[in-house]
Amino acid sequence: MSREMFSPLATGSTIGILGGGQLGRMLSAAASRLGFKTHIYCPEVGSPAAQLAAYETVAPYEDLDSVRDFAESCDVVTYEFENVPEFTAKAAAVGSILRPGPKALATAQDRIAEKTFLKNTAKVPVAPFEQIDTIFDLKRAVKVIGYPCVLKTRRFGYDGKGQYVLKGEDDIAMAWETLGEQPSILEGFIAFKREVSIIAARGVNGEIASYPLIENVHKNHILHTSTAPADGHSGKAKAFARYILKELNYFGVMGIEFFQMESGDLIVNEIAPRVHNSGHWTQNAGCIDQFELHIRAITGWPLGHIQLKHGVQMTNLIGRDIENWDTHAREPDSFLHLYGKKEPKPGRKMGHVNRIIYVPRGQLNK
Amino acid sequence: MSREMFSPLATGSTIGILGGGQLGRMLSAAASRLGFKTHIYCPEVGSPAAQLAAYETVAPYEDLDSVRDFAESCDVVTYEFENVPEFTAKAAAVGSILRPGPKALATAQDRIAEKTFLKNTAKVPVAPFEQIDTIFDLKRAVKVIGYPCVLKTRRFGYDGKGQYVLKGEDDIAMAWETLGEQPSILEGFIAFKREVSIIAARGVNGEIASYPLIENVHKNHILHTSTAPADGHSGKAKAFARYILKELNYFGVMGIEFFQMESGDLIVNEIAPRVHNSGHWTQNAGCIDQFELHIRAITGWPLGHIQLKHGVQMTNLIGRDIENWDTHAREPDSFLHLYGKKEPKPGRKMGHVNRIIYVPRGQLNK
Repeated sequence: MSREMFSPLATGSTIGILGGGQLGRMLSAAASRLGFKTHIYCPEVGSPAAQLAAYETVAPYEDLDSVRDFAESCDVVTYEFENVPEFTAKAAAVGSILRPGPKALATAQDRIAEKTFLKNTAKVPVAPFEQIDTIFDLKRAVKVIGYPCVLKTRRFGYDGKGQYVLKGEDDIAMAWETLGEQPSILEGFIAFKREVSIIAARGVNGEIASYPLIENVHKNHILHTSTAPADGHSGKAKAFARYILKELNYFGVMGIEFFQMESGDLIVNEIAPRVHNSGHWTQNAGCIDQFELHIRAITGWPLGHIQLKHGVQMTNLIGRDIENWDTHAREPDSFLHLYGKKEPKPGRKMGHVNRIIYVPRGQLNK
Repeated sequence: MSREMFSPLATGSTIGILGGGQLGRMLSAAASRLGFKTHIYCPEVGSPAAQLAAYETVAPYEDLDSVRDFAESCDVVTYEFENVPEFTAKAAAVGSILRPGPKALATAQDRIAEKTFLKNTAKVPVAPFEQIDTIFDLKRAVKVIGYPCVLKTRRFGYDGKGQYVLKGEDDIAMAWETLGEQPSILEGFIAFKREVSIIAARGVNGEIASYPLIENVHKNHILHTSTAPADGHSGKAKAFARYILKELNYFGVMGIEFFQMESGDLIVNEIAPRVHNSGHWTQNAGCIDQFELHIRAITGWPLGHIQLKHGVQMTNLIGRDIENWDTHAREPDSFLHLYGKKEPKPGRKMGHVNRIIYVPRGQLNK
C-alpha cells in the first residue's frame, strides 16, 4: 500500500514525527533550517517537540484513524523512538511514506529479531544469545551461554531497565521473576574495555555517511558522556554500519552501540533506528548534525558533508543537573541545549552540554 | 506602567516575538535551544516564524486588545523588525516587558531621531544631515550639505527603498516628488571604500558582547554577502557599539552599519534594534549565534562566549536563487538555511548559505 518517494521532497513540505520528546524537538529545529514544516504526533499536550512545530496531533498511538489522518497530512513520516507500536507504524505507512520503514522498526523493537538479523543477515559480530520463553528455556540456555550472562526482556528495554545479570544457577529464579516472566533473551556477558557507538545515515539513493567513532560513558545505566572522535580508528565500525543499513534497505539516521574488547574487536550491542543520544555532540562539531542528516536522508536530499571541525564532548543533564544551567551558560567553548521539560524528575533527560575539545586535525575524521 | 525584570527568566518561560519573518523563525529556534517557548504575533497566518513556535496570534498590529492579550501571555516580548508601530510597542510594554525598549524602537524608526541620537548623545561620527519637511527645506539644505547628497524618507525605508541621490540642483524637484513629498532627511553622500557592520549585544546587567567586524557587499540595494571577520581591526566599531548600546540602555542584539572611508575611519550609517541579516554567519562560526545571544540578552541570561572558531561568509538567496538548493546542499563546509516561504518573488529573501572560510587563528577575534 505504501507509496515510495525517491526524488527529493521540496522545501516547504511537511514532515510528520511520531513522538514528542527532545529528539523530535531537535529534529523539528533541523527540519526548519531546510525550510520544512513539521507535524508532531504525541499523546501528551505541549510536548517538547510540539512546542517547535507547525502542526500538532494529540492522540493515543492506538487511535489509528488519527494516525492515518496525521500521516495523510504529511509528505513523509518518521519517528523519534523505536517503540512505536507495529499497528501505528503500519497505519502511518498507509497514510504516507514511513522512513525508516516498518522493517527497521520491527527489527529494532525485538531483541531476538535484532540479534538474529545482525548475526545472520548483516553478518556482524554479536554476543552469543538464546531465545527465552519459559523458565525451562532459561535453565537450558545458561548451560549453553555460561556465566556471567544477562537476561533481557525482548521488548521495551531502555536505560538498563529490563535487564538482570546472572552470576550463577542461584540467580535463575530471581532473574525470571524480576523481569516479569515474559519473552526474553539470554545473552553472554561481554567483558568490554569500553562502550562506543557510531551514528550513520543512508539516503534514498543508497548514499551512506557516518560520523567518526564515539566513546560513551554511562552512569546509573544512563548515558553520561559521549566523546567524539573516540581514540582509535572508525573503519570497522563504519563497515559494520554499512552492512546493517544496506541489509535493512534503511533510510535515515541510525545509532549503533558497540562493546569494544581489550583486543580492539567490536561487538554490536544494539541498534536504534533513529537519531541517538550519543550523537548530540554533532550539533556543535562544525558540520551538518545528526538531526539535519536524518531530515536530509528521509526527504531524499543529498546527505551533505559531515566532516568535523573539532572534537566535542557531550554531557547529559539528568534530573536536577539542570539547576547548574547558569554555570554551563557561562563556560567558554560550551553549548547548552535544554529540552523545555517541566519537572526535573530523577533520571529524566533535561538537556545536554556540548563542549569543544581540541584534537589534532589528522585524527578528526578517521 | 511597564514592569522591569533583571533576574534571569527560567527555562520553560515564554518569549513573545512581534513579527513572523525569518528573523523570528531563527530566534524561535534559538529560544528552543535554551528550553524557552515562543509566541509569535503576526498579521499573516502560517508565517515562517509561526511554523516553529508553541503559540501564534494572528491579528493586525493595530488591534491593541490582541497585542495586550498576547503580551500578557508572555514573560518578555521582543520584535524582529524595527517598524513596529509605536502604539503596538506601547501596548506590548503594558502587557509584558518589551526588550529592546520603546526608546530604541523610536530612535531606530525615525532617521532624524536616529542621527540626532548618534551624533549628540552617543557621540559617534555620522554623515552631515538636515531635517526636511518641505521642498523649501530641501532647497536650503542642499546648500549646506553640498552635492552629491541623498534624500531619504524619515521612516520605513529598507533595502534602498525610499532613497534618492541628488547630483545637482536639477534633481531637487524629482527627488522630492519621487519620495512622496513626506518628512525626510538629507544626508551628505559618503564616498566609502566599503560597507561594514557589527553585531553587538547588551545584557540586563550591562554586560556587552560584540562579534568581530563584518564586511558587507550589496547587490541591487539588497545585502548579497557578509564576510567575517572583515580585514582590519574591530576595535573602533566595537567602541562605537558600546557607546550606542549604553546610551540607549539597550537590552538585546543590535546591528550597526558603517561606511568605512579610504582612511579607515568609520561613519555610522544606521542602527537596527534587532538581529541583523549581516549577522547570519554567526550560526556557523562555532560560537553562540546572534539569535541565541539576543535571547540570552532579553531573558537576563549570561551572554556567554562568542569567540569564532573560523571565518564564515554568508550569501543571501534572493528570489529564484533558491532553485540552486541542491548544489548548495552538496557543497563541503557549507550550511544551508531556508526560511519556509512559499513564493520566490524577486527581491524576497528565501534563505542563505554560510560557507566556512579559513583565517589565521590570530586574526579571528580581533
